Amino acid sequence: MKKFKGLAMLGYNNIGWIEKEVPEVGPNDALCRPLAISPCTSDVHTVWEGALGDRHNLILGHEASAEIVEVGSHVKDFKIGDKVIVPAITPDWQAVESQMGYSQHSGGMLNGWKFSNAKDGVFGEYFHVNEADGNLAHLPKEIDFCDAVMLSDMVPTGLHGANLAEVEYGDTVVVIGIGPVGLMAVAGCALRGAGRIFAVGSRKRCQEVSRFYGATDVINYKDGDIVKQILDATGNKYVDKVILAGGDVDTFNEAVKLVRRGGIVSNINYLGTGEFIKIPRVEWGLGMGHICVIGGLMPGGRKNMEYLSRLLVHGRLDVSPLLTHRFSKFEDAEQALVMMKDKSEDLIKPIVVL
Amino acid sequence: MKKFKGLAMLGYNNIGWIEKEVPEVGPNDALCRPLAISPCTSDVHTVWEGALGDRHNLILGHEASAEIVEVGSHVKDFKIGDKVIVPAITPDWQAVESQMGYSQHSGGMLNGWKFSNAKDGVFGEYFHVNEADGNLAHLPKEIDFCDAVMLSDMVPTGLHGANLAEVEYGDTVVVIGIGPVGLMAVAGCALRGAGRIFAVGSRKRCQEVSRFYGATDVINYKDGDIVKQILDATGNKYVDKVILAGGDVDTFNEAVKLVRRGGIVSNINYLGTGEFIKIPRVEWGLGMGHICVIGGLMPGGRKNMEYLSRLLVHGRLDVSPLLTHRFSKFEDAEQALVMMKDKSEDLIKPIVVL
Amino acid sequence: MKKFKGLAMLGYNNIGWIEKEVPEVGPNDALCRPLAISPCTSDVHTVWEGALGDRHNLILGHEASAEIVEVGSHVKDFKIGDKVIVPAITPDWQAVESQMGYSQHSGGMLNGWKFSNAKDGVFGEYFHVNEADGNLAHLPKEIDFCDAVMLSDMVPTGLHGANLAEVEYGDTVVVIGIGPVGLMAVAGCALRGAGRIFAVGSRKRCQEVSRFYGATDVINYKDGDIVKQILDATGNKYVDKVILAGGDVDTFNEAVKLVRRGGIVSNINYLGTGEFIKIPRVEWGLGMGHICVIGGLMPGGRKNMEYLSRLLVHGRLDVSPLLTHRFSKFEDAEQALVMMKDKSEDLIKPIVVL
Amino acid sequence: MKKFKGLAMLGYNNIGWIEKEVPEVGPNDALCRPLAISPCTSDVHTVWEGALGDRHNLILGHEASAEIVEVGSHVKDFKIGDKVIVPAITPDWQAVESQMGYSQHSGGMLNGWKFSNAKDGVFGEYFHVNEADGNLAHLPKEIDFCDAVMLSDMVPTGLHGANLAEVEYGDTVVVIGIGPVGLMAVAGCALRGAGRIFAVGSRKRCQEVSRFYGATDVINYKDGDIVKQILDATGNKYVDKVILAGGDVDTFNEAVKLVRRGGIVSNINYLGTGEFIKIPRVEWGLGMGHICVIGGLMPGGRKNMEYLSRLLVHGRLDVSPLLTHRFSKFEDAEQALVMMKDKSEDLIKPIVVL
Repeated sequence: MKKFKGLAMLGYNNIGWIEKEVPEVGPNDALCRPLAISPCTSDVHTVWEGALGDRHNLILGHEASAEIVEVGSHVKDFKIGDKVIVPAITPDWQAVESQMGYSQHSGGMLNGWKFSNAKDGVFGEYFHVNEADGNLAHLPKEIDFCDAVMLSDMVPTGLHGANLAEVEYGDTVVVIGIGPVGLMAVAGCALRGAGRIFAVGSRKRCQEVSRFYGATDVINYKDGDIVKQILDATGNKYVDKVILAGGDVDTFNEAVKLVRRGGIVSNINYLGTGEFIKIPRVEWGLGMGHICVIGGLMPGGRKNMEYLSRLLVHGRLDVSPLLTHRFSKFEDAEQALVMMKDKSEDLIKPIVVL
Repeated sequence: MKKFKGLAMLGYNNIGWIEKEVPEVGPNDALCRPLAISPCTSDVHTVWEGALGDRHNLILGHEASAEIVEVGSHVKDFKIGDKVIVPAITPDWQAVESQMGYSQHSGGMLNGWKFSNAKDGVFGEYFHVNEADGNLAHLPKEIDFCDAVMLSDMVPTGLHGANLAEVEYGDTVVVIGIGPVGLMAVAGCALRGAGRIFAVGSRKRCQEVSRFYGATDVINYKDGDIVKQILDATGNKYVDKVILAGGDVDTFNEAVKLVRRGGIVSNINYLGTGEFIKIPRVEWGLGMGHICVIGGLMPGGRKNMEYLSRLLVHGRLDVSPLLTHRFSKFEDAEQALVMMKDKSEDLIKPIVVL
Repeated sequence: MKKFKGLAMLGYNNIGWIEKEVPEVGPNDALCRPLAISPCTSDVHTVWEGALGDRHNLILGHEASAEIVEVGSHVKDFKIGDKVIVPAITPDWQAVESQMGYSQHSGGMLNGWKFSNAKDGVFGEYFHVNEADGNLAHLPKEIDFCDAVMLSDMVPTGLHGANLAEVEYGDTVVVIGIGPVGLMAVAGCALRGAGRIFAVGSRKRCQEVSRFYGATDVINYKDGDIVKQILDATGNKYVDKVILAGGDVDTFNEAVKLVRRGGIVSNINYLGTGEFIKIPRVEWGLGMGHICVIGGLMPGGRKNMEYLSRLLVHGRLDVSPLLTHRFSKFEDAEQALVMMKDKSEDLIKPIVVL
Repeated sequence: MKKFKGLAMLGYNNIGWIEKEVPEVGPNDALCRPLAISPCTSDVHTVWEGALGDRHNLILGHEASAEIVEVGSHVKDFKIGDKVIVPAITPDWQAVESQMGYSQHSGGMLNGWKFSNAKDGVFGEYFHVNEADGNLAHLPKEIDFCDAVMLSDMVPTGLHGANLAEVEYGDTVVVIGIGPVGLMAVAGCALRGAGRIFAVGSRKRCQEVSRFYGATDVINYKDGDIVKQILDATGNKYVDKVILAGGDVDTFNEAVKLVRRGGIVSNINYLGTGEFIKIPRVEWGLGMGHICVIGGLMPGGRKNMEYLSRLLVHGRLDVSPLLTHRFSKFEDAEQALVMMKDKSEDLIKPIVVL
């Protein structure tokens, strides 16, 4: 059996390189070789916070562009050598949840998330893709294969935040947290026609890039209560929508205090600790204020990749400002991952070209 | 100036009869004389829990059918002598919030609620209606004027719960709380094509009537954890939607534990105490489970009254099982209100015919 | 190779019994044996109107309940001997169209329709089901296997009409055409909370059954212009929605003339002839009346079958009045099909128990 | 009684200046003095095509920014001297249609359109506004009062086209007709996150400006069949949405031939002639293709003006390229209107500053 190398979570707090057997390719599946990869804050949660529990020898990573090296007997639309966009979420498309529009949760809560969760991730010489026809998209020739890596998770997650928030023409929106996902949420709001966009974050680089993506106002939570800062700026008018791309269970308290009746609080942030999300009763209208609170994992799959890639092809969205650090050897994946953990002042995303 | 009599909150914990001057009728307004009235649990909250703060000499009541005794110069569709349905919520229709579809909150949170809140209510010999053309509906001859009182609040509030829950064909729904509003939520689910409907409540009469309105399973919270009882009944399958027509800020914890990814928790229950609504983080998918939590005051206004009244006209909804106790003198309003506070085993709603 | 017998379209205008080889079962597929079957007006279109072109030796039928006799290696949720509900539409779930919510059109216009179209239908001793996990549903023990046949096409098509029409509480709806699909559209409107329902048709039996399903007014097009009849009945008020389950391209003219601004004309009727659907310009508001015109094939797949079956399990919908004629031998399928073509006064649907 | 001057339709094919009495201001109304005005193609239809019938001495115009000179006794949010944005559509907000979200049709088909239709328009020294609190918006200091005129009709109509088309991230959209409304439809698509945008028109200036607003491909119908041209460009893939801002009843035929299953044809074009809108039966999926055909008048009112104005305030939308010709005297309104009729190669919109 052929072997391959990958960067894995060996155990809690512990990463390293391991060798595994190349996985078998079922009739609907594909085997891929990454072209470029990028670590995600989720990988950091997995290894150093034990977000998924104590995993052993699990190859990390769910952001990659790739080339196909093998396809199953029933795969119709892809062949060996095709270059592809790979979504972080690769659902089971026959599942009842998928038929209901929640493919992310095909087979159970968050179960559309396979890479570096239910099976080995993309930080290997090879990786396996379930239901290739439904989960891969052809890489358009107009898109750089490094930019394409941002289509795996950053772009769809950020834009899903704006979709859940149902941003409309002229809406005033607050995006809390402006790491790469939050920045894509800002871009997503501008792309849905928001008017004023408040970006809440403290790192200089991220603040600057948030303006590039359409933020009109930058709020630093280190300067005091963000609710007060924002309501001061609006003349005490509530905002239409709040997107949470950072913070924790307590941040919902601030979000609800900012949003108008009929507004939406949309969460795309992984909530690692705390027993309860905190919705303030009075500002939630004593239960009657029509403030919708919702959160969700990005939708994966081919359709989403095809449509989002058109934003890059047609110049609506430029992801290059996200790629602040580049590496050119597979072995650098380890350093890139540590860098994502340490989050220097000038980091947004590191990328590793293979 | 002409005077009239009404049943008022004299102060905290204190009700009684007072005399007031007949209010002036502006160009868009109407003056009405009630035909039948019914006290609501909200009136109980107002007087005995101080839900609106310490009000003095505020005439109570927001559920009535009525006859018009005066109309403003700009009112086009109503004239003296017309019999009308009166919604509990009478919004300002020019307000920006109304233009956005949230007329309940015209001018501010819950501000579409005028009767027995921003002005005197309907438990008087006369009451004032703002924007009559937009807020009254002609009483169809097919509807009894006592039944019509249930269109003021019980029917629209209960059905709004089912609307917020976006109940679809075959959905499994849980309705927590089966007082009159919860019963109308059960009816609302059946009327939107729900499959299985769990009704959660302990009073016998309400349990029986819930079956009349379409409940397939009755759950008594006195028999143990309702989450366990319901998941046992479904074979551990989550339900599609939960409607809260009772309970408190902690009940959201149970609701979220019952609902599937992509499901909805819809609240139509006044939440009088507690700092935070409690959404359990893990069952809410760590922020990513696509479980929508929303709550809202019923929509008022003419359109809603006209459409809901057709359910009675065409025999889709029979409200008569709600009217468990009848009084025939205006003076009985006081006893009816106290009865609503004391909630005997066999009470659903008392009604006072004038 | 094992052979089996089936009732086929031999060619245009010509049906008969043929023998074929039992189809191969791919990894995701299943082979079924029908328990009961029913002919559909679409089969009549196929054979006697050449709706699909001149087909040869195509086994007919797409309405059946069945028992599984073989499953593919990757099928997880079904095994030999399971009794199942079989939707007329069995999409490819990985297709981009399915991911967009239009699985009916997976792979192209109407391509989710496989039985008696892209492959042999269910009027055989065996039939093949693609993507069994995604396309079959377990038959609940509470549902009679004859009633279950109505879940293949009649129930989902009729209710899809009400869904496309976005029927809401109290809506006034017109259903044009009250064959079995139209009757299920009537039921679908009542199940979504419609108020007044006009059923338009001429056959006595269908008129009676339409009242059973919730019609409040029956209109016979033989009594004169239906637009006039209905507007007379409403006092010249437009209706909210019109569902077309009969008629032809000209019937849209009448539908648009009946519907209010912001209303919907929803079509579930196969349109066999005519170059253009006719939307009257003036009544369509000179292009600006917000009258939505839409039509669509029923959604197939497992989720839809599971949810719709709950309407039968919980007594919300009784399909037995549809089953007016019963046969008890496979060979009677031919007579049942001819009966469907000839449509006697008292026919709604014939069923053949195997 | 005070008199004022205005540019009127004297009769069919005949415009001129007339004098009228200043209208009375009811309790909810306002009287305004225009700051800048612009003629619209609708004015051309009214005068030279008799679109509204043969009107006499009707002051024309429905696009203006203005200053308030008088307010009614019940107006709360506006006072004399306030500068305002004036929507072309000024609904009756109490009407049932408004409560249903179709304020354009308050009181009947298109009846929210008052200016130069149900009453004198804005091409006078004064004009009357019904329900001022609901229909005017304060002019933000960041917006030039000439740009503001584009908020009356061009921006809301164009963007309404994109809203009706439910444009989503990455959609491929065709906009047919690229006069000022079509150009705003192009901008509206880009602002909702469209990917590829085909702009169909023949005038050079409009073609150039369409690229400024986000068109990726310009199609000239004089170069041949637009369906063929567009499908050639897409490699025979259908587009997601088509917006009609030009053409006639036959153009729907082309639109339906371009759009995918589940797609939308959205019309914002006044259809002046032809008995029927033509929907091609086969491409419409024989009635079952889930292609939605809808058209609608822009929404008016204060909320819409407030939200759309934020697109200008925050630099999301620059309307200045629309204003190709400027006049500086009230008397020039006549020349500007004739110019709009004659549509020179380099014209988009003329504006008259008062």
